[in-house]
Amino acid sequence: MRELLLVLDLVGTFVFALSGATAGVKHRLDLFGVLVLSFAAGNAGGITRDLMIGAVPPAAISDWRYLAVSLLAGTLTFWRPSAIDGLRSPVLLFDAAGLGLFAVAGTEKALAFGLNPVMAALLGIVTGIGGGMTRDVLLAEIPTVLRADLYALAALAGAAIVVIGAPLQLPPTVVTISGALLCFGLRFMAIRRGWHLPVAGEPTQSTTSARAEGSEG
Amino acid sequence: MRELLLVLDLVGTFVFALSGATAGVKHRLDLFGVLVLSFAAGNAGGITRDLMIGAVPPAAISDWRYLAVSLLAGTLTFWRPSAIDGLRSPVLLFDAAGLGLFAVAGTEKALAFGLNPVMAALLGIVTGIGGGMTRDVLLAEIPTVLRADLYALAALAGAAIVVIGAPLQLPPTVVTISGALLCFGLRFMAIRRGWHLPVAGEPTQSTTSARAEGSEG
Amino acid sequence: MRELLLVLDLVGTFVFALSGATAGVKHRLDLFGVLVLSFAAGNAGGITRDLMIGAVPPAAISDWRYLAVSLLAGTLTFWRPSAIDGLRSPVLLFDAAGLGLFAVAGTEKALAFGLNPVMAALLGIVTGIGGGMTRDVLLAEIPTVLRADLYALAALAGAAIVVIGAPLQLPPTVVTISGALLCFGLRFMAIRRGWHLPVAGEPTQSTTSARAEGSEG
Repeated sequence: MRELLLVLDLVGTFVFALSGATAGVKHRLDLFGVLVLSFAAGNAGGITRDLMIGAVPPAAISDWRYLAVSLLAGTLTFWRPSAIDGLRSPVLLFDAAGLGLFAVAGTEKALAFGLNPVMAALLGIVTGIGGGMTRDVLLAEIPTVLRADLYALAALAGAAIVVIGAPLQLPPTVVTISGALLCFGLRFMAIRRGWHLPVAGEPTQSTTSARAEGSEG
Repeated sequence: MRELLLVLDLVGTFVFALSGATAGVKHRLDLFGVLVLSFAAGNAGGITRDLMIGAVPPAAISDWRYLAVSLLAGTLTFWRPSAIDGLRSPVLLFDAAGLGLFAVAGTEKALAFGLNPVMAALLGIVTGIGGGMTRDVLLAEIPTVLRADLYALAALAGAAIVVIGAPLQLPPTVVTISGALLCFGLRFMAIRRGWHLPVAGEPTQSTTSARAEGSEG
Repeated sequence: MRELLLVLDLVGTFVFALSGATAGVKHRLDLFGVLVLSFAAGNAGGITRDLMIGAVPPAAISDWRYLAVSLLAGTLTFWRPSAIDGLRSPVLLFDAAGLGLFAVAGTEKALAFGLNPVMAALLGIVTGIGGGMTRDVLLAEIPTVLRADLYALAALAGAAIVVIGAPLQLPPTVVTISGALLCFGLRFMAIRRGWHLPVAGEPTQSTTSARAEGSEG
């Protein structure tokens, strides 16, 4: 179980690091800038969670494997951006899988550190969306996770499964996999079908809306 | 005293969360994005202070009431933005009140954790302005607290009262209320009268200045 | 040795604070905004490192001298921007020196807290580049350290010297000075000669590239 979680965690880090590196290449950062974005996107969520629950040094700092997979993703993307382009659809899939795993693993770690269920779920969401937020803030953009289709709601669903499953004495492996799958499935369907949460305000295409969409591009 | 502080702290969180939610609605974030901004604006200052003084997990994470009032403010703003518009003037008042309270409460918590007076005042300012800064950074804007009329100076004044009052053995309630009132009053007068700090550089309307003002809009 | 490190550390803080204040004046922040940027640019790297290794409260919070030199740099820049302009070339020199020292001192502190060599070097880089990144994020810009000539690579070189020198039982003073000098020299030559890391993508001057360069200005 512990080893399964570590493997999945590293896969999630790798995929999120790919997203950071791709964004860095798009903004024409140099090699080092791309590597920094890879590390930030892959690990900022987990680092934030670890700082908040008092798990210092954070796993991303004390375990070299998180750095290694982040740099691997960054280097691959930098030297072979075309290969990643070809992987666009798989990357979206992996990203959804990474979100599911990070949300579930983050919640479990917070529970293990004694937080109450609601706050553990909150930290699960932070773990899942923190990397993408940091990536976008470093690129001076409004984080897409604040706008993207069901991104954080999917993370919440996965975290909720863990929080509800824990006191029911269900087998941890079943709970973990169910939570990750639910999160993955929701996000996958949202991408496929364009599901999204309501946006505040009048539905007219005002100037503001046009500007907001422009800055998304 | 402790209960009074908690109530005022939650009121401050609520008001700052309103400001975050309003900014999120303006940028046409979806429901979740608005809730994230509410939580960030209401709690980032306190979380930063708690991380720095080693109070982990931060109160905003370990006490569900901070999350609850943040989500309440976000949901209200999202579904009834017109109601908040009608409250614009009261919100500015509440915001000034929240600033006063956060600055004072942040300073007191830092003193209780053994920091020296100057650094405790610094952390009081961080508590007061951290939420607004995070809100604006997430929206890819230069934080208004770096420009707004006496915003941080008012926070400093409130924090100073606490730091000076503590060794004088004055009753804590009196000190707390005096500090919060001074901060509130300064900020209130600054809004009313347009008081502001000097800005560096020549007063001519150069190209740079026009561009800076443009990015403020 | 300890006193030498402290002096150099404060000099580094002062120089980075100058860079933050200069950026704040350029964006026409008011006096307080300039002081906040000074403190952030001078201390964010060290604060991040201290939070991650569990050294709370961070030195920048518990030792008043870091605040003092930051405010001094900010006030000087605010009231005498022309004096700083005249210092542009020395400031670049000091900045390179500050980078060298922060990278080396950050690595040494992380080693002292028991981190393994690779992670200590990583935290050395964080210490060196964290201030500049925070400064630019607060100004809603993509951090120049992600693009600038060998900035972070120079930090890595300095950190590597410390990490390699530590187990060899070399005298700490020699290792520290060698690492700082190597970092300083690399950065200095990069500025002089325009050395830079490769940038991903085709070498043609596409629209994207022009836009990226525009936003750098």
